[in-house]
Formats: sequence, C-alpha cells, structure tokens
Amino acid sequence: MPPIMRIDVPEHNGELDIKSAYIQGEDSFAVKLSSGFFNNPSMGLPSANGMMILIDSQTGGPLAVLADRGLLTDLRTAAAGAVAAKYGSRTDSRVVGIIGTGAQARLQLQALTLVRPVERVLVYGRNVEKQENYRDEMTHQLGIAVEMYDTIQKVVEESDIVVTTTPSKEPLIKGEWIRPGLHITAMGSDAEHKQELDAAVLEKADMIICDVKAQSVRLGELRTSPEKINQAIELGELTSKRKSGRKSDSEVTICDLTGTGVQDTAIARHVYSLLITGEGVKDERSEV
Amino acid sequence: MPPIMRIDVPEHNGELDIKSAYIQGEDSFAVKLSSGFFNNPSMGLPSANGMMILIDSQTGGPLAVLADRGLLTDLRTAAAGAVAAKYGSRTDSRVVGIIGTGAQARLQLQALTLVRPVERVLVYGRNVEKQENYRDEMTHQLGIAVEMYDTIQKVVEESDIVVTTTPSKEPLIKGEWIRPGLHITAMGSDAEHKQELDAAVLEKADMIICDVKAQSVRLGELRTSPEKINQAIELGELTSKRKSGRKSDSEVTICDLTGTGVQDTAIARHVYSLLITGEGVKDERSEV
Repeated sequence: MPPIMRIDVPEHNGELDIKSAYIQGEDSFAVKLSSGFFNNPSMGLPSANGMMILIDSQTGGPLAVLADRGLLTDLRTAAAGAVAAKYGSRTDSRVVGIIGTGAQARLQLQALTLVRPVERVLVYGRNVEKQENYRDEMTHQLGIAVEMYDTIQKVVEESDIVVTTTPSKEPLIKGEWIRPGLHITAMGSDAEHKQELDAAVLEKADMIICDVKAQSVRLGELRTSPEKINQAIELGELTSKRKSGRKSDSEVTICDLTGTGVQDTAIARHVYSLLITGEGVKDERSEV
Repeated sequence: MPPIMRIDVPEHNGELDIKSAYIQGEDSFAVKLSSGFFNNPSMGLPSANGMMILIDSQTGGPLAVLADRGLLTDLRTAAAGAVAAKYGSRTDSRVVGIIGTGAQARLQLQALTLVRPVERVLVYGRNVEKQENYRDEMTHQLGIAVEMYDTIQKVVEESDIVVTTTPSKEPLIKGEWIRPGLHITAMGSDAEHKQELDAAVLEKADMIICDVKAQSVRLGELRTSPEKINQAIELGELTSKRKSGRKSDSEVTICDLTGTGVQDTAIARHVYSLLITGEGVKDERSEV
C-alpha cells in the first residue's frame, strides 16, 4: 500500500486524495480518487466526490470504473468503525453517542447495530435542524430511540460507545470526561490540520487501535501523541487474531480511523463481484 | 505536482504508476493511471495499459474518463521529445538516429519532423524484423529515407539528433562517441533500474535538459550523475523563456525525459476540448 497521493487546488478550497493497495494474491485491486471541494455547498453541490477504478492484478487492465461519488468510501469507513467496535467496545454496549449529524453519523450508527445491541443513541450537533433531521431519520430507519444532546460532554459521559464524525480542527473530547469501559472511534481526522480528541484522551486509553499506524501518526489522532505509536494496534492485527481486543469491562479503548487503500480495494472487489453476479447496489448517489 | 504513486504487483511482474498535476488557474486537471505488466506479451497482450481521468478544478467532480490504453501518454512523450529538440538541437539538424523500434521510436520521429528538417533516419534495433518493419512503415508514412544500422555507435556518430527509446538497464551510448553539435533525447529510463546513457555522456554535455529535475535524479539519467542536477534546465524553463536553449552549433545537448503529470494534464485537457467541440481522435487502441 503506497502512501496517499494528494493534489491541492487552493483556489477552490479543494483537495483530491488518491489511495490504492494491492492485496497479495487477489485478482484485482482498486485505485480510489476522493475529493473534498469545500466551496461546493455554496453552489448546492456536496463537498465530497470520488470514484474507484478496479484493475486486473494479472494484466494491469481496467475491469471497472465505479462512479460512486464517494458512496463506497462512506460504506467502508462505517464498516471499519463497526469492526473497531467489535474488537474494542464492551459486548453489552447499549448506549451509543454520535458527534456530528452528517453521512458518517448515519452510517457509523447503522454499522454499529450489526455488532452491538444498540438501544439508545445520543446525538450532538451544532446545527439543531440537522440534529432533528438526524433524530427523525435514524429513529425511523433503525427503530432505536435517538435523543438530542446539547453538549458533547454529556454524550461522552452517558455512552458506552462514542463515534466522532466531524472535520473538527480543535479537540472535541477531553480526557476528564472519559469513564472506565468507554470505547471511542474517532473517524473524522484524516489530515494534518484536523483533530477530534484531546491528547489527554489518548493518555486515558488502555488500548489504542488504528487502521494504519503510519497514517494515524501523520494524519490522525496519534499526531498529538506520536510516542503512543508503539502501543497502538492495527485493525488488521485484530481481525487476523494476531492481537486480541478488549481484555476487561473497565478498559478504555480508542480507535482512530484515517482510511486505507486496503479498505478501498476490499469494497471495490466486493461490489464488482456483486455487479458481475447481477446483484447490483442502489443508492441515489450511485451510478454503479 | 505530487510525486508519482506506484503500486507493485510482483507476482505478475507488473507495476501501476499514477501521475497527476494541477496547473494553477486551469479549469481541469488529470489523474493518469499507467501500467506495465511484463508477462502480458506471453498472453498476446501489450505490456502497457492506462487511462486518464479529467477532474473539474472547481468542484472536484469527474469530467471524463479517457480509456486511451496509454495512447495519450505515448503522444505527450513524443511531443516532449520534439520540444526538447526544438530548444536543444541545431536548427539545421537533418539526420536523426533512433535507438529502438517500438511505438516511441515511431512517434518521436514523427514529432521531430514537425520541428526540424529531417532528411535521413538511421535506426538501430536488436531485432532485424522489427527494424525492417520500422524502416518500411516510417519511409511510407513520412516519405523520409530510413536506413538500418547494426551498431549504436555508428548511429550516434552520423546523427545530428539521437533519440533513445528503450527499456535498457545498461547504458547504450558511450561518452567517446559524442561529437560536437549533437543533441540526444533519452526517453527510455523512468525507473531506478533503467539507464540508456553512460555517465560519460553527461560529462560531455554543454547543456543538460530534463522534464523534472527531482524525477530525473531519482528515475532518469541524472541518477548516475546527481551532482549535475544544479546545471540541469527543465523543459518548462525553456518554453517559458526563463532560460535559453542551445547557444552555438558546437554545443552538445542532452535531454532526459521521465514523464510528468503536467504533460498528462495538458494532453488530457487538449483531447477533452477536442471531444466536446466534436473533433474526436481516432486510433486503434483508443476508446476516447
């Protein structure tokens, strides 16, 4: 997996990231373009866009261009959050706190319900209207009680699992709010200038999980505590059982996600296999 | 322009390179995938493949996927060779030596005829049948006498311009063959293990031109003589008139091309503009 390639377009407040990974022995791999152009909302367009190109591992030829506009990235990121919770959170986690009210706030919750018996959701967002929309949609979609909270502190103090899904540049969660047993997944920070967790939060952690150490220390929450890299565990070490997850109900576990080319290759291969067997996927954004 | 991203697929003797560049102020930019899978010929497939994706600079959205299978890379590389010759070679260069008999051997010659009064072509290739095909095709296509030579030394000694177009891992041209007034464009080396010119050739140069210094010193002919980087001139410095080209008929000029994302963005934008004005391009490989 090569380092992320990045093209900046400062005039338009935009950036394009390219990720890729070849998984040894697999017959195809993906190259993903994902963009964030932050003037788009003023033109009525979403900031995010993107596509995945699936390449034949044997010949280098293109197999598919998946013009998903970022949908598959959203899905694989949410899936990674659920995997992190599966290994990091208490198995009886029933209360989930969500910071943010956007697409990832929705998908991370949806994915969590696949691995934990979620009964209550506490959502914090700066915009009350978006918070209300979130509450109404998620209650309807998942049949779970969603409650609007007006401080992040209260969400953190009352939750078993907290997921932060913001583009914040300032830490949102403080160390003194952390109770024994809590699991946090911070998926927002994926660039040098972003941060969701105070360095003191990492101090409280009994276990730090991330997708890729080298990325987390450069682009994610480990940026503020690079000395923790040696105790960090990668998601792949958990899924392959080389390392074990949570060891007791009182441990504090923190997972930082920056997103990896391996995840892109995995979901592009999965979707392509659905497509060629005739089981397509449908979404309003998707031209897949 | 970010550094080249590279994905290796060692099991299949393959590699995929990704290049990109945003040119300030332009309304679109390209991301190019180009692959070399060197077991392909044994399956009856070309080694090279690739595509370009044109991105809207304002929104980050995709404008076009140009499934050119490497054609546009071939064309822009030949065009860069002609630009190098325009600034580096004597204006009265009439004899062109071509080392290699593949696609670039053809396109580089074709491009040179646009900038210099080419009257004779001397071609060297290891495979006589391919050399004959080259001679017959180029004579027919360009109406120029093409002569088959059986040593590289003789080609170099009798030419005004020499273009090397090989994937050679060993230097092909020696310093002692270089006469005053010669211009050489070495376009073959674009990876750490490739080399077409002996270090002594660079010693003989009065002017060293390259497309991107940082790439040439890592992947191109400057790899063997990194101390020359300070005297090297980039093509863009010549085309923008910040530096001047050949200063006398007796100078020896050497140009090393490794290929740049800026060139990809330029040709993708050009082709896209032809496409949307209805003037398409046709080629057997092209699905453009």
